Amino acid sequence: MRAITGIFILFAVALSVRAETGHELWLRKHKADPVKIIASGDSATLQIALHELQQGWQGKAGASVVLTVKPDESIRGDGYKLTTSGVQAKTELGILYGVYDLLRRQQTLQPIQEEVSNPSYERRVLNHWDNLDGSVERGYAGHSIFWRSGTDPLAVTEKDKALWREYARANASIGINGTVLNNVNASPQMLSSEYLSRVKAIADVMRPYGIRVYLSVKFSSPSLLGGLKTSDPLDSQVIQWWKNKVKEIYGLIPDFGGFLVKANSEGQPGPQDYGRTHAHGANMMADVLKPHGGIVMWRAFVYSPGDKDRAAQAYAEFMPLDGQFRDNVIIQVKNGPIDFQPREPFSPLFGGMKKTSVMPELQITQEYLGHSIQLVFLAPMWEECLQSDTYQEGPGSTVARATDGRLFQQKYTAIAGVANIGLDANWCGHHFAQANWYAFGRLAWDNGLTGDRIADEWIRLTFSPNPSEQPNALKTGDWLETFLTPVKDMMLQSREAAVNYMMPLGLHHIFAGGHHYGPGPWYAPKGMRPDWTPPYYHQADASGIGFDRTRGGSNAESQYHEPLASQFNDPATCPEIYLLWFHHLPWTYKMKSGRTLWDELCCHYEKGVLQVRRFQKIWDKVEPYVDAQRFAEVQSKLRRHYRDAQIWKDACLLYFQQFSRLPIPYDIERPVNDLEDLMKIDLKWSHHN
Amino acid sequence: MRAITGIFILFAVALSVRAETGHELWLRKHKADPVKIIASGDSATLQIALHELQQGWQGKAGASVVLTVKPDESIRGDGYKLTTSGVQAKTELGILYGVYDLLRRQQTLQPIQEEVSNPSYERRVLNHWDNLDGSVERGYAGHSIFWRSGTDPLAVTEKDKALWREYARANASIGINGTVLNNVNASPQMLSSEYLSRVKAIADVMRPYGIRVYLSVKFSSPSLLGGLKTSDPLDSQVIQWWKNKVKEIYGLIPDFGGFLVKANSEGQPGPQDYGRTHAHGANMMADVLKPHGGIVMWRAFVYSPGDKDRAAQAYAEFMPLDGQFRDNVIIQVKNGPIDFQPREPFSPLFGGMKKTSVMPELQITQEYLGHSIQLVFLAPMWEECLQSDTYQEGPGSTVARATDGRLFQQKYTAIAGVANIGLDANWCGHHFAQANWYAFGRLAWDNGLTGDRIADEWIRLTFSPNPSEQPNALKTGDWLETFLTPVKDMMLQSREAAVNYMMPLGLHHIFAGGHHYGPGPWYAPKGMRPDWTPPYYHQADASGIGFDRTRGGSNAESQYHEPLASQFNDPATCPEIYLLWFHHLPWTYKMKSGRTLWDELCCHYEKGVLQVRRFQKIWDKVEPYVDAQRFAEVQSKLRRHYRDAQIWKDACLLYFQQFSRLPIPYDIERPVNDLEDLMKIDLKWSHHN
Repeated sequence: MRAITGIFILFAVALSVRAETGHELWLRKHKADPVKIIASGDSATLQIALHELQQGWQGKAGASVVLTVKPDESIRGDGYKLTTSGVQAKTELGILYGVYDLLRRQQTLQPIQEEVSNPSYERRVLNHWDNLDGSVERGYAGHSIFWRSGTDPLAVTEKDKALWREYARANASIGINGTVLNNVNASPQMLSSEYLSRVKAIADVMRPYGIRVYLSVKFSSPSLLGGLKTSDPLDSQVIQWWKNKVKEIYGLIPDFGGFLVKANSEGQPGPQDYGRTHAHGANMMADVLKPHGGIVMWRAFVYSPGDKDRAAQAYAEFMPLDGQFRDNVIIQVKNGPIDFQPREPFSPLFGGMKKTSVMPELQITQEYLGHSIQLVFLAPMWEECLQSDTYQEGPGSTVARATDGRLFQQKYTAIAGVANIGLDANWCGHHFAQANWYAFGRLAWDNGLTGDRIADEWIRLTFSPNPSEQPNALKTGDWLETFLTPVKDMMLQSREAAVNYMMPLGLHHIFAGGHHYGPGPWYAPKGMRPDWTPPYYHQADASGIGFDRTRGGSNAESQYHEPLASQFNDPATCPEIYLLWFHHLPWTYKMKSGRTLWDELCCHYEKGVLQVRRFQKIWDKVEPYVDAQRFAEVQSKLRRHYRDAQIWKDACLLYFQQFSRLPIPYDIERPVNDLEDLMKIDLKWSHHN
Repeated sequence: MRAITGIFILFAVALSVRAETGHELWLRKHKADPVKIIASGDSATLQIALHELQQGWQGKAGASVVLTVKPDESIRGDGYKLTTSGVQAKTELGILYGVYDLLRRQQTLQPIQEEVSNPSYERRVLNHWDNLDGSVERGYAGHSIFWRSGTDPLAVTEKDKALWREYARANASIGINGTVLNNVNASPQMLSSEYLSRVKAIADVMRPYGIRVYLSVKFSSPSLLGGLKTSDPLDSQVIQWWKNKVKEIYGLIPDFGGFLVKANSEGQPGPQDYGRTHAHGANMMADVLKPHGGIVMWRAFVYSPGDKDRAAQAYAEFMPLDGQFRDNVIIQVKNGPIDFQPREPFSPLFGGMKKTSVMPELQITQEYLGHSIQLVFLAPMWEECLQSDTYQEGPGSTVARATDGRLFQQKYTAIAGVANIGLDANWCGHHFAQANWYAFGRLAWDNGLTGDRIADEWIRLTFSPNPSEQPNALKTGDWLETFLTPVKDMMLQSREAAVNYMMPLGLHHIFAGGHHYGPGPWYAPKGMRPDWTPPYYHQADASGIGFDRTRGGSNAESQYHEPLASQFNDPATCPEIYLLWFHHLPWTYKMKSGRTLWDELCCHYEKGVLQVRRFQKIWDKVEPYVDAQRFAEVQSKLRRHYRDAQIWKDACLLYFQQFSRLPIPYDIERPVNDLEDLMKIDLKWSHHN
């Protein structure tokens, strides 16, 4: 075996001599040309800007670049203006962002013209679901880069700081300016002095890159950590405890961002435990943070077991509180009403809450989209959400506009992305998962960007149109045609492919228990709360399939503004991508294609599998233009991606066929697995965490 | 889980109410019409013929059938003549065969016309590789129907006898007239008096069906069982021991058929252990058996570790002995020179040995053709061998004519098939594996039959063109078009498909160790004798692939008669199906298609997988016309068949690619498994034996 493996490696190397781990992300080292930089000041942030220019300049050799910090009405916050002579901004961080943009344009061969760029959201925040023992909830790229277990877990080493610096640089290069360092299912230990000293060390590394640190806090910390008898937010001792803790934090970290809170959700403590509302809880914390400039990001991800429709609960619980929150509270709302599914309609809280700051929470880590095994580029999904029209203030009231301050007055605007980052050499487990981190940052900066534009940028940065940087030097024009176009096409199709082979036509949450990776439409262990089991969501029976959220059903459609509510309520006008989200329909329901619902479902599953098969071809074909290591790693992932897509198709079709009692259309490929076997296999991804 | 399984079963039942285990084989019960039978005599054999007619008559109700035993020059042995009034034969067994033919024609809706049918071979023998402990070597259909372990293993029960009777009937219905009850790797215990008494019981059940029993014997039985100091075939005590033993056997079984011997092969003892030749050993036994009318079937399956080409050894060892064997010795030769591979050229001993009786040994059990997992219909493979022209007595000297007495004077003619029968309800593990048992019997009777004709018959018998016997009554014409045509097409393509996804273009013996099911081109444990490892056979290296058997190589081609030797020796004239059997060629060797050898290899593997994918479609489409149980069981087997074909393709292409260093053509589907993983998985079929 050993000898054979040896041969194999030799072979891989032979095809392309360069091997890369992917650790450089979209910030590959380049042969830089000399550049003359004119700037005043020598802050740490400015030093970074200078260094980046010197290391990465690809413009005219010996050219001058002027970096100017000065007031400008066209620039907001840390926005910047690219000019023919350099970068102008109101802040040094704005300069740094402008420099990254300049270098990005050079590296991607995009024109540089006078142009102002302002951020869509003021706070562009990563949420790390990192536990203090180093594990990462829904992390598929190794352990935490911030926390570890073992001996002396709190020691801050040079290696730690170097990694945090790389992390900060990557984030700054795409405009991310905040990071929540720990899991929303927070440990009270997070606020202990020992852990806060490590937070300070992290914050010190982040600061020059313009990144503020935030912490997730457990609502019952006063009792659990402080030893108080209660954590009631109206209790004066509790308030005092928080005041002291916040003061301690700001003593260490003067630019500390604030708290992220998951309260009264999935077993986490919250104000309701003391007969208080979410507003009571959030406002208490907001009041404590306000003097220091901190904010509270309060999650609206709530649902309880008894309710008749989980999708309707966050809205039902939070809408009555609209107007009751302090101006430094931001309600953090997941893009869809359930939970980061492959496809959901937008949450009706977007645009619905008009007197409260609301921020979208996107999930970069692919909890429900193939973990770090499947190549799924998420920008098109986020674009779909951000561009959805809520109609709350008339046509054009998109989710983007309802959250970025254009539609409503908000003291703070923000957007969060649950990070997909871990200790893996390539940071994200899958080389293409880096594109999702990249895309989040870019969309947080400019929520009008398209997935196409983002993919284009990322491919050019991560691989290279520059002949001198390719394994087999291709002329740039050829590279665009032979490499960029097919690879981008694959990325842009990948999310729809995942929807097709996992949950087409509005199906949702039919994963096997626990891991949220493989199919489990049958999964319903005895005694489990129904809303944690797929049959609750798909409702398949002899009469049909889908969750009835119409007026005759849970009436969740009524949470949407007209004309959406009526559109969704009628299967004839409901977009077919959401059909089974809102309707329980007979298997023989006639679709717009003329096919029956059952046949259409089968065709979607088939299409998804064929799409992944095509991705394999696309990738294999670009082998000469990628370094050996990244090529082989992605190729291997795509193989498993294909096998698992096939398993999804087989499992769902064979399971649902028990109810439809209809043949799978004979023009599509047959299942290659038996349902019985599929119900036994465990696709759990046990490698990481 | 339980509830779900319940639903699934209900579903399967709903599609088709009849469920069949397949135990009836091609002899399904039919609603018989009354028939008047005119016959004289009441032997047990004749009684069976009468009973079959009464139970299965599908002709004109109340018609008369005359069964006449009388001499007829046009009839040979147990042949028969169908006449307008009934069946005429020289023996009562001939009558029985004629009756089965008559009924078969009725059930398959074939015309009945006056016609003589004579057997191609006098001895049409199944070889059971059944061990006395009940296990079956290379058996994939459960344990032995003859032997068992446990308490009182030799007790003959009524259940035993009923099963043996069903077995005998099935064999008689297709003309099989002999059965070797135990493994060629024989236990000396086989000849003990205790076991012989069970053999007598089996023979008593078989006799009325015209089936003689034979035994495999261990050459060293005189020492191991008889306690003699030697088993030297020239030793008088040894000879006497055999005389006594044979006498004992014939005392119990007057029509005992004779011995099958595997000697000096794969560790079995033989005459060479005593400095004697195969002729010495075989002749000694032949002399002992002759007075009783017994024969010796002496296997030519010999090869030793040191030799430079295993394929050349049997010929090298046996040709010098041609003419030295007694007339009641038949040399039993496997169809190809190596060992029942998916495709081999015929063994050059056929036609080569001109003064010795030679019988073909075919393998019905799918040791190298997918066990009882894959649907592989073997008749086309056997037809290919039997119709191969040896040129030994001029053009037209086919293997069939060289072994059935047409080309050479042979006192006895015979053909053997290694059985695929076990205790499984459907006898053969896979419903379609029954077709191979059927095909062997039919070809043994008439070695000019085509695979097409045999498949046609088998499908009509095993399923039914009769509307009253189908789950969803189809008019016969529709049934032929909708069911028979596609299913037959699938069967006829299936062996070529297996060659494509396992070992195209003359590749052979690249199985993983031991089980001979999954791929193992890399398999070469340290210290294993080379001719038991795949690299010995494929010889893949950077310069190319294939076993050089040309004049510059092992020269095995010279064992063939001209023009074959020269044809095989030159890659330009060598049939491409045998190309890598005879040649080691560069990866870029230009094939007749214009493709390189590497590309052509890839295309064959791809084609094989796509063929199995098509089989799945064919089978799924005929669901309405098959009972639920057989449909579901075959469907499930085809799913695994597909998955394993894919594994074959991936394993071989990725393994060989290490040497070819060429891309897999981009128009074919990509591997979906990693070589590393494939080298670890164990496809051993552990269910049976």
